[in-house]
Order: sequence, then C-alpha cells, then structure tokens
Amino acid sequence: MIIRQIRITPVAFRDPPLLNAAGVHEPWALRTIVEVVTDEGLTGLGETYGDSGHLGKVRECAQALIGLDVHDTNTMYARISAIIGDVVSDMHGLTGVATKEKSVDRVFSPFEVACLDIRGKAAGVPVVDLLGGRVRDAVPYSAYLFYKWAGHPDEEPDRFGAALDEAGVVEQARLLIKEYGFASIKLKGGVYHPDQEIAAIRALHEAFPGVPLRLDPNAAWTVETSIRVGRELEGTLQYLEDPTPGIPGMAEVAAAVPMPLATNMCVVTPDHLPPAIASRAIGVLLLDHHYWGGLVRSSHIASLCDTFGLELSMHSNSHLGISLAAMTHLAAATPNLTFACDTHTPWQNGQDVVAPGALRFSAGAVPVPAGPGLGVELDRDALALMSEQYEKCGIRARDDTAYMQRFEPAFSARRPRW
Amino acid sequence: MIIRQIRITPVAFRDPPLLNAAGVHEPWALRTIVEVVTDEGLTGLGETYGDSGHLGKVRECAQALIGLDVHDTNTMYARISAIIGDVVSDMHGLTGVATKEKSVDRVFSPFEVACLDIRGKAAGVPVVDLLGGRVRDAVPYSAYLFYKWAGHPDEEPDRFGAALDEAGVVEQARLLIKEYGFASIKLKGGVYHPDQEIAAIRALHEAFPGVPLRLDPNAAWTVETSIRVGRELEGTLQYLEDPTPGIPGMAEVAAAVPMPLATNMCVVTPDHLPPAIASRAIGVLLLDHHYWGGLVRSSHIASLCDTFGLELSMHSNSHLGISLAAMTHLAAATPNLTFACDTHTPWQNGQDVVAPGALRFSAGAVPVPAGPGLGVELDRDALALMSEQYEKCGIRARDDTAYMQRFEPAFSARRPRW
Repeated sequence: MIIRQIRITPVAFRDPPLLNAAGVHEPWALRTIVEVVTDEGLTGLGETYGDSGHLGKVRECAQALIGLDVHDTNTMYARISAIIGDVVSDMHGLTGVATKEKSVDRVFSPFEVACLDIRGKAAGVPVVDLLGGRVRDAVPYSAYLFYKWAGHPDEEPDRFGAALDEAGVVEQARLLIKEYGFASIKLKGGVYHPDQEIAAIRALHEAFPGVPLRLDPNAAWTVETSIRVGRELEGTLQYLEDPTPGIPGMAEVAAAVPMPLATNMCVVTPDHLPPAIASRAIGVLLLDHHYWGGLVRSSHIASLCDTFGLELSMHSNSHLGISLAAMTHLAAATPNLTFACDTHTPWQNGQDVVAPGALRFSAGAVPVPAGPGLGVELDRDALALMSEQYEKCGIRARDDTAYMQRFEPAFSARRPRW
Repeated sequence: MIIRQIRITPVAFRDPPLLNAAGVHEPWALRTIVEVVTDEGLTGLGETYGDSGHLGKVRECAQALIGLDVHDTNTMYARISAIIGDVVSDMHGLTGVATKEKSVDRVFSPFEVACLDIRGKAAGVPVVDLLGGRVRDAVPYSAYLFYKWAGHPDEEPDRFGAALDEAGVVEQARLLIKEYGFASIKLKGGVYHPDQEIAAIRALHEAFPGVPLRLDPNAAWTVETSIRVGRELEGTLQYLEDPTPGIPGMAEVAAAVPMPLATNMCVVTPDHLPPAIASRAIGVLLLDHHYWGGLVRSSHIASLCDTFGLELSMHSNSHLGISLAAMTHLAAATPNLTFACDTHTPWQNGQDVVAPGALRFSAGAVPVPAGPGLGVELDRDALALMSEQYEKCGIRARDDTAYMQRFEPAFSARRPRW
C-alpha cells in the first residue's frame, strides 16, 4: 500500500474565550487535517496543530513520504527527522518545552495516525486492534472546566456563559456533566490568584462529592506556592497538574505535597523521562499522541510508564473528531491508561470535520468507534466550510497572550506568576 | 480472524556438547513448535522452549486463547497471566533469574509471534512491516563460539571437533566465519579458569584483528574477578556479558571496567530495568523475544533502551528457524538494535522444522525473509521427524549440570565459581 498523495487542509472552528495562564483562547481555533491516499485508493485521516510554522513543516514533510509503504513508519520518521533538522518549532508554551525531538514527533504524528487508519481499513479492523486490542470498550473522559468570559468581547455571550468565580465553575461543571455524563473533573487554573482556585476546587469538591478532581495551573506558580496549594488541597485532588515550571521545581513540589503531580509540560519527549524519573518529579504522565510521535510511539511510552510505576492520563488541546477517535483507540488499547482522559470536545459545541454518528459520549466515555481504521469519515462539506473559515479568520498562529492583551494591556503570561 | 485451533508440538534435535558455566549441552535440544490456526484457515507459527514444565503451561494457556481474534494480544496476555498466577517456572539458570512476570512473558511469546505471522500473511506483508518497517535489509549475527568436546562421550566426534583451549577456539571461529561470514565473535565463557578465557580472547583478537569480540561467562565470576578480567581485556572486548550475578554486583563491576557490560541474566523482565538503570549496572541489553513477551513487547523495551541510553543486542538459546525468522524481523525493525545478534544456528548443523530456502546467511547476516508473515513455512516431514525424536530422546527438561556430572561427578554449577 504505497502512499500516492497527501492532502493537507488547515481549518478553523469557533472557540469560546477560555482563560488560561497564557491568556485567553481566540475566537477561532486552528487545526490541520491530513489525508493520506494510497495506490489502492484507500484514504487515512490524521489531525494536528494548525499554526502556520507547523503547517509549513507538515506540508514540506508530506512530499518526502510519497512513494513509501504505509507500514514503513521507521523510514517516515527518519525522513521527517532529516527535514526538521535542528529546527525547534512550537506553537505556544502550554504544551511545555520545545525540543528538536518534539518538533519531529509533532510532524510525524498525523501521518502515522493516517497510516494506521489505512492499515485498519485494509485489514477490516479498528485501529485499537493494531495497538494490541481493546482492554476497555469505552474510554472515560473528564469534564474539562475553564474560567471563561461570557463571550468574546465583540460578540454575544455563548451558550456556556461566564465562569469567573467558583460559582461559575460549579455551574459549568453541572452543564458539562448533564450533557456528557463525565465522572471526573479537571479545572484549568493559573488564571486567578491561587486562593481563588483553591476555593473553586473546594466548591467542586462540595458540589460533586466523590468525583475525582484535578487542577492544572500550567506552571503558573512558584515552588513555594505550589507546595502551599498542594497541602491546602489535601484530600480533594486526584492529582495536581504542572503546578510549577521545570523538572527540578516539580521534583521539589512532588516531595512536599500529598498528591501525585501530573505533567504535559515538563516531560514532553522521551529525553525528559530519565531525569524526571530519577528525581521523582512526576507521578502521572499526560500522554498526547500529537506530540509523542503518534499512536505506536505513545504505546511505547505507556509501556515505559508501566515499567517505572508512572500512572497515565491523556492531555488535550482544542481538537476535532479525528483526534478524538485516535485518542480513544489509543486509550482503549493501553492497559495502564486508567485515568479519565482530557478532551476539549464540549468546547467545539458540535463543530466537526467528521461525519456525525461515529463518536458519541455515553456516561462520560466514548465507545471505541466500530471501525475499520479510526472509524470516522470526513464530512466534506464541513471540511470545506472550516477550510473557508481558516482562510477568512485571519489567525495563523495561536496567541492567547496577544489576544488577552487587546483587552487587558497589562496582562503578562510570565510563569511562574504567583 | 478468530483463533480456532492451536497445535503444540514438542520437538528434539541433535545438539553438540557445548560447554558453559552450568555444564554441557545434552545430545538433544528441545523446542516447542506452536501453530495457531484461524477460522479463515490461516496458520501462524511460533517457537518456544521445550522443557516439560513450560510445555505444560503453553498447552494449558493455548486452550484459553481459542475464540480470540489474532489482534487481541492484550486479552491473550491477560488470560495467560491469570493462568500462570504466581507460578514461577524457568528451565535453567542461563537465561537469568526467574520471576512470575517472566513466566507469563515466556508463555505468551510464541502465541504473539504466531498471531503476527497470521496478520502479516493476511495483509500480504512481512512481520517486519507490522513492527514499523525495516531499517536494515539484513540482520548481522555473531559467530557464537563455545568450548566443546569433540563429540558426546558415547558417540563419534562431530564435524566441529574439540575446542578445549585458545587454539581450538580460534579454529572454531575460522570454521564458522568461513561458512557463515560472521563479522563479530562471541565466546561463551565461564567454563575454564578466567586466565584461560583471557588467553582465548587475546588469541581471537590476534587472529581476527578489528573483529568485535565479546565474552560471556554467565555470571561465573565474583565481582573482584570480573573487575580483574575486565581490566585485563581493555581494548579487546566490544562488551563483557554477565560477568557476575545480580544487578548490584554488575553495577560494581560496571563502575570499574573500561568496557560496557551486557546482560541477559540480571535484567530479564521490565521490573529489572529501573534498578539496573538507576545503578548503571549495564550498558547493553541482550533482548530476547522468547522471554520479553514477544515481538511487540520487545519493541517497547527497545524503545525504552533508546530513551535511557542503553545499547541493544540480542540473546539466543538453541533454536530453530521460526525463532531465527522472528529474531530477524524484530531486529530489522529496531533502529537502535545495532550490535550483531547472537544465534545458535550453526550448531543446528542444518536441522530445521522450516522448509529450506527462506533463511540464509550472507556475509554473517540474515536477509529479512520476503514474507508475507514470518516468511517461513513448516517442513511437515522435518516436524514429524523431530517430534519422533522428542518422543524417543528421553529428555524432558534441559539439565546441562546433571549431564556434565555423568562424566565429571565433582562438577558444580555454583555461581560465582571463580
């Protein structure tokens, strides 16, 4: 099955004003849709970031993959690595430090996913079966709460409304749980003073007794603040995610707080694992196939985490259904991925490039698409619309900080902030 | 592709009197041939150890896999794990410590290989393509030298003749290199006083300048002896394999000798990796899919080694062509498996259960069988003959020590010995 053509389509979809340590989500979120077509006419789908620098690398590397067999991922990886060279690209700071290896893994990922989609279609099996078979029929996701404005400043309020304090956060959780059935809750923090976020976690704990809670300030805190917050939140958090920047700081915090620390920021490539493990900096790795080099490489990392006693959850950026399908197949095939995964799906508010029906939430979990392959197909009209939106929206690289500064000129995304 | 039938056939083949720290190879080597048959009539092959305890477990577990899809290796592993329970089985000490996890991995392996064989056949691709695609077209193996008697005590000398000193070892190397073209040499040590084995390595170094050399005494030495030998052999060894028992002892040696230490004895399951890495006990892991849980789990371990800066080679026990094919596919798909692998193939002296032609040595390397699947097919007559040999040979579990003691009653396999 030889790769004859690769279509690359950047898309944009509406995104609510979600607040985080770097600023606020812009009105449009960008993604890139990758379609790999073989000589036999099979098409595989991949999805990756939409920032222009990354998009350019994806386009450049796609050319180098024409003529390869869809199984030959080792050669694909080597060719992409040679093209990326020593260039370090990254879209923004929320997915952690940028390295050369991560840049290669990020570009490789959508092609690898698309090739697995093709292999699954050819074999008549879902992608989960190419990763070892399902250990669960549905993958639990968490309610991913954000502080948010009622709407973008120049627009009407969106249907989610404002969440600027603990009451708003609890209300948002009620809405997401009602609509999706989530059984775990994650709050994106690093937005307000830590005491306010402590109050929000306590309010969630009170409103949803027994529901596992997580807080992710995106490294907005010093070591001292992280330790104080961690201790104050004893008994309420399943894990505390990226309280402070860097492996040494995380290790200091980990030694002093009662709950495990999770990360998708200080450990983002294989190179980071040895020092993080040696210093016991983390207890939970938030896997993300978009920058861990696709699904098979992510399964290698999952196996490594099992060997070293690290627990696993899954990280998410704003994404569409191809990514949700890929995440679901990977999580369903990974025995030690036992925590509910993150997803931004509710914030898409129904927008998608995949045809409806293949992906659904039931009791907070996504049943593994029946396949074959990823089990999702492009909705060509939706793709055309989102592509048009990309052309018109004017955004070419995500910049939560600059967007925030349009409304709060004094805003700074410096980390640690508190 | 549902598993409908699994045939398990123990076989025996002639084995020369190869000496090692545990004693001497008996006249017959045992293996178990596994044939997995699907509802669509595809058959996949696996090969594993032939000792009766292990054979019993393989037979018991085979029953539990009927009805599963060949992709569903996670469920296969879970079922085998449940059956093995806390039983620790191992055939002898030369493949290192025995653990529950290793017992599961050893039983799981031939089924996993057979399922990959089936998947490759169904997809029309070689197994190497199911593991990421080939990074090399042929896999280099090393000349695996043994001190040996001229023949078994009650028999005529075999064609390899005696190798009881450095001259015999050099002569044996010349024969194997002439016939197979090997470009690396490994000497199985732990047989004679270390000074004699130092002399053998020096003789090989002189006779084959520039050819990488390895010495493997199977943990027959104390820490002190290991350090002395390691220092005396500076500049002659590519790596020193398992000089002394256990991770702490290996760590002491590793810190004091100039060459990397390799192991297939103190690190034999994932659980051993964290302490070995933390104590810097080894520089090279000798992977062996027969006890690292098959090909995909071995590729996880290879990835982990890459992450932690461990180099890779491959371990071998007496084996037949199914194993050689599986080892070759795995090594061909593993970018960081850069050392020549071990193989006992020359000592089979042409005996095999696979039909001739698919496997050949060219300049010391085995070209990846063209496939599909493993690329080898059973020779049913050869299988029947070897099965008959198994029934008649009287050996049911390898015991190099007892066999040695028949001729040298005072022999002890205690380790460390020197």
